Amino acid sequence: MIAVLKHGTTPDQTAHLVNWLKAMNLDVHISEGTEVTVLGLIGDTSRVDMDLLKSLEIVADVKRVSEPYKQANRKFHPKDTIIQCGDVRIGGGYFAMIAGPCSVESEEQIIEVAKAVKESGANILRGGAFKPRTSPYAFQGMKGEGIKLLLEAKKETGLPIVTEIMNISTLDLFSDVDIIQVGARNMQNFDLLKELGKTRKPILLKRGLANTIQELLMSAEYIMSEGNENIILCERGIRTFETATRNTLDLAAVSVLHELSHLPVVVDPSHATGKAKLVAPMACAAAAANCDGLMIEVHNNPSCALCDGAQSLTPHQFDELAHRVRLVREAVR
Amino acid sequence: MIAVLKHGTTPDQTAHLVNWLKAMNLDVHISEGTEVTVLGLIGDTSRVDMDLLKSLEIVADVKRVSEPYKQANRKFHPKDTIIQCGDVRIGGGYFAMIAGPCSVESEEQIIEVAKAVKESGANILRGGAFKPRTSPYAFQGMKGEGIKLLLEAKKETGLPIVTEIMNISTLDLFSDVDIIQVGARNMQNFDLLKELGKTRKPILLKRGLANTIQELLMSAEYIMSEGNENIILCERGIRTFETATRNTLDLAAVSVLHELSHLPVVVDPSHATGKAKLVAPMACAAAAANCDGLMIEVHNNPSCALCDGAQSLTPHQFDELAHRVRLVREAVR
Amino acid sequence: MIAVLKHGTTPDQTAHLVNWLKAMNLDVHISEGTEVTVLGLIGDTSRVDMDLLKSLEIVADVKRVSEPYKQANRKFHPKDTIIQCGDVRIGGGYFAMIAGPCSVESEEQIIEVAKAVKESGANILRGGAFKPRTSPYAFQGMKGEGIKLLLEAKKETGLPIVTEIMNISTLDLFSDVDIIQVGARNMQNFDLLKELGKTRKPILLKRGLANTIQELLMSAEYIMSEGNENIILCERGIRTFETATRNTLDLAAVSVLHELSHLPVVVDPSHATGKAKLVAPMACAAAAANCDGLMIEVHNNPSCALCDGAQSLTPHQFDELAHRVRLVREAVR
Amino acid sequence: MIAVLKHGTTPDQTAHLVNWLKAMNLDVHISEGTEVTVLGLIGDTSRVDMDLLKSLEIVADVKRVSEPYKQANRKFHPKDTIIQCGDVRIGGGYFAMIAGPCSVESEEQIIEVAKAVKESGANILRGGAFKPRTSPYAFQGMKGEGIKLLLEAKKETGLPIVTEIMNISTLDLFSDVDIIQVGARNMQNFDLLKELGKTRKPILLKRGLANTIQELLMSAEYIMSEGNENIILCERGIRTFETATRNTLDLAAVSVLHELSHLPVVVDPSHATGKAKLVAPMACAAAAANCDGLMIEVHNNPSCALCDGAQSLTPHQFDELAHRVRLVREAVR
Repeated sequence: MIAVLKHGTTPDQTAHLVNWLKAMNLDVHISEGTEVTVLGLIGDTSRVDMDLLKSLEIVADVKRVSEPYKQANRKFHPKDTIIQCGDVRIGGGYFAMIAGPCSVESEEQIIEVAKAVKESGANILRGGAFKPRTSPYAFQGMKGEGIKLLLEAKKETGLPIVTEIMNISTLDLFSDVDIIQVGARNMQNFDLLKELGKTRKPILLKRGLANTIQELLMSAEYIMSEGNENIILCERGIRTFETATRNTLDLAAVSVLHELSHLPVVVDPSHATGKAKLVAPMACAAAAANCDGLMIEVHNNPSCALCDGAQSLTPHQFDELAHRVRLVREAVR
Repeated sequence: MIAVLKHGTTPDQTAHLVNWLKAMNLDVHISEGTEVTVLGLIGDTSRVDMDLLKSLEIVADVKRVSEPYKQANRKFHPKDTIIQCGDVRIGGGYFAMIAGPCSVESEEQIIEVAKAVKESGANILRGGAFKPRTSPYAFQGMKGEGIKLLLEAKKETGLPIVTEIMNISTLDLFSDVDIIQVGARNMQNFDLLKELGKTRKPILLKRGLANTIQELLMSAEYIMSEGNENIILCERGIRTFETATRNTLDLAAVSVLHELSHLPVVVDPSHATGKAKLVAPMACAAAAANCDGLMIEVHNNPSCALCDGAQSLTPHQFDELAHRVRLVREAVR
Repeated sequence: MIAVLKHGTTPDQTAHLVNWLKAMNLDVHISEGTEVTVLGLIGDTSRVDMDLLKSLEIVADVKRVSEPYKQANRKFHPKDTIIQCGDVRIGGGYFAMIAGPCSVESEEQIIEVAKAVKESGANILRGGAFKPRTSPYAFQGMKGEGIKLLLEAKKETGLPIVTEIMNISTLDLFSDVDIIQVGARNMQNFDLLKELGKTRKPILLKRGLANTIQELLMSAEYIMSEGNENIILCERGIRTFETATRNTLDLAAVSVLHELSHLPVVVDPSHATGKAKLVAPMACAAAAANCDGLMIEVHNNPSCALCDGAQSLTPHQFDELAHRVRLVREAVR
Repeated sequence: MIAVLKHGTTPDQTAHLVNWLKAMNLDVHISEGTEVTVLGLIGDTSRVDMDLLKSLEIVADVKRVSEPYKQANRKFHPKDTIIQCGDVRIGGGYFAMIAGPCSVESEEQIIEVAKAVKESGANILRGGAFKPRTSPYAFQGMKGEGIKLLLEAKKETGLPIVTEIMNISTLDLFSDVDIIQVGARNMQNFDLLKELGKTRKPILLKRGLANTIQELLMSAEYIMSEGNENIILCERGIRTFETATRNTLDLAAVSVLHELSHLPVVVDPSHATGKAKLVAPMACAAAAANCDGLMIEVHNNPSCALCDGAQSLTPHQFDELAHRVRLVREAVR
């Protein structure tokens, strides 16, 4: 960390600040220039309150030289992480095609969709059992029963499954789930992240609607700091002023995340856009941006879906999408 | 709910849609105009997926005529709700001046601050015991021990206390806490909201960084739908492109919330701005905008605070702020 | 336009409103339902102040049924518009590969870059002569001299040229320019748009940093309402809270614009991201999203560029990008 | 400006960079630390492309130590600027109460409103003659005729007038106007700013919908760099994801601007909120935040206003607002 002192700071003021910093177990290296004095802080600066330091009268500016995340950082782990999930691999050139309904609704529905998406090339099945809904009066998911049906569909098709957890107290229900999803609204539910860090299950961590790329990596760091390194990052759109789409899909985040981190990055164009018509072009765009996987909502009867039907594809539309995505991936390799 | 059908919709298409809607237990009233046909949907429309309805080929637009929140809605509860908390009342003309440190750090610190802010006119003590921090390596609060120290300070000063919960599993520790705070990052942690709805404690619900006013009311509705009507809403800044302040304080939200809801609204200028210098002018502005309370960070030694020192006032600065706020409140009454 | 009246509106109040609307030369069709009364307004509703109507005591809501843009609207012009610009066509399957330096700096520079990008497959040359810069102290472009050098490069290579206008009073200098660019900051400089509407030159209209897709189409409408239908829309990133990239490229806007309008849509990944490394993946993503062209900054010596060097590619990098974009376009066709 | 070089940069690489910087007429002061090397750049750094510097392989980070605006900067001009406009002063404790209709519509209307607002304590009259409208089909203002009517109202009441310019070519029409307004959409119309810098008229410069506080000051700098120092800054709301109000009024900007600059700051709650009911509370809040003036839309018959009637107050409502604002100003002084 670098602190730049203002022109005119007295030696006494500088000494006072240096002592305060040393009391935090930091080494301080002083470089006096003609215009400014620069303090280099060496040691564990992760506990230093940058804003406080910046607010001091004599401090012109403060900069972190190193990123605040360590284990998620590509600098300390240059090779791509590859997540193993049953026979499926994600990252480092391996591609996850995750598909399935927003909500599990019945055994018939989930098995029919699972078979269809597998046929079209999906290698992981998604399906919501616990559903975070803005309204307390909206359908909240089949909960534990939904997970059982997903496991039925897994048995039937062999596809590993991913489903969302909302609450630590339900963790036991996820023992046979292959990938646990943390939804956008829980990206900074730090207690949940820490508990998931104590498992060794792959975690699919969705970016929050108003969270920066750095905050996403800090949330991954929460999980990793407890020992679980199996993390899949997911870009699913951010909240902006534009209302023509539900959210704004930030595809540049894929490249930025690949540069900063070794973790795989998948993209969810269904939630990002909220409109079935936009899912296929955004899926192709994400593949062209070199993402490590896609997460697509597919329903056997979108107009009867209990939630998010507006953004669900039919199995037939998904089949076409999957074909186009394969062509795009070949083109950019 | 109103659905506007496109010009050129055939009677068959209309009948098909009407039947589908009736299957959801809705009454449908059809008004045929020369330009468009309008369907009025009567009944419990809270389960209708507006986006899905809107995405149908023949539908031009869909509008909710009634708000999706009921118990938080002023329409059905015209009188201001007054929250009772020990001897202190909030709302309906009663003002909450909540002050204290970001984090509880020691018995000495919390008692010293509590006495000072009480002296200056604060009527509720705040202090963080469980701290949501972006980094897993930052100070995470004194947890249960912090709550004990807050209760010591309450005993010493008589001030009721408010502190944040991050996780349902710690609820027992809050049995003597007067007001439980739900932080911005947990505003849509729906399982937490539902559990808090089963208590009868006053809940201070902070608006999420990227959440709309309507979503804040829907989260209040989650708590209320379980039976707890003691909710205090809190505006604490939203995330925008501006970087000169930590967040952008949305003071118009105070008036909008007062119009839409009967619940009291307090404002937290400390977290909204992130800078001590801006706290006093924004506190005065919030008072002028007719808020029902303020939440101010005060620390006996801001430059040594373990978190958010940059935005903390000294007891002396708080004393001046409290005086100015009283004058402003008299001016606008 | 549809106005929904609140439950409990009296016949007198309704009559009063209907008379007021009729005084604006609108036909009003009344549909009385059991829950609400709906007024259908027929005629030229483009002058009706929706916000005012909505603010009236008895009005629950107001909806436009038809879009406020007419000439840019695909409804009234279903076939893709193809812009002709010398031998080059844009839209309806024809692809514009626009490349060149941010600023024209010298004859040598612009001709060297022009030859290089043509060699790699560019079919239009870009180069800034008038540069809108945030600081009055930054390089403001070579102005008229820059346009002359662009015309030299055009003579040398045969490539049509596009360059930005900032001010109506300089229009004469653009008489031999093939495409006139309106920059993001001028998207709502309505007087400039109207003047450009009086020419018959192709206009490349960039989306403003904080402008919605609908506002972009309304600005196109300004130009078209004066008779010039040769408009190319350009997505170049919007302003959000994310700071890892200069702006957030909104690729879903490409599909949304194609659905709403017949005008061609090009994408500028250079300005959107502000970082050379991100230009190629975002260009491929844009091509996969089916855009009608790309606008790429290329400089023969990016580290010496007088402006925006950070986002410029070398001719060699552009050559690779152009190759990959061709492969992606083949994949999605 | 400070450039921080990465750990591991070789002496050769450092020397190469230093030479490149010196070629831009900068002095470079090198401070070698154990962890990083810091370059202090001294001289006119306003032309250095920070993004480019930051993008170089060996550069970890770049920081401006000094703000990029000079003449608008309080550092170089510690005393508040007071704008003189007829007998009215703005800034340094003097308060501008600017009121009038969104658009001038007729002689009768503007004179009636002018008399009424003067009676209630307004000291400047506003009224739009040239109206920037999103739609080409909306009322565009009375133009030159409107300015004549404003001058009539000035003659009648003695109030100085402020009205918006959209286009340099109409500057002659503003010769008797007291304050020329630059609207939010033109905040970065740099050619317009430069021309206004050549006049000596007070300029009311509105913040753009998506512009940062620093960009607002850079636009003020454009005007000042041409010699005109009579600038009034205006906060009028920024564009965010919230849709309950038209824009989000950023009142912290008032304090931030006062700290960074010596220029007076007025607030426009009418355009910021778009709703008449919110204007009074936000006006009081702005006064409590210590702004130097307010700009309020008042219409003698809001429901017939040709534009923005939804946000206009009646003269009676304005009278109450002006009274409350006076009380708040006394309270915070």
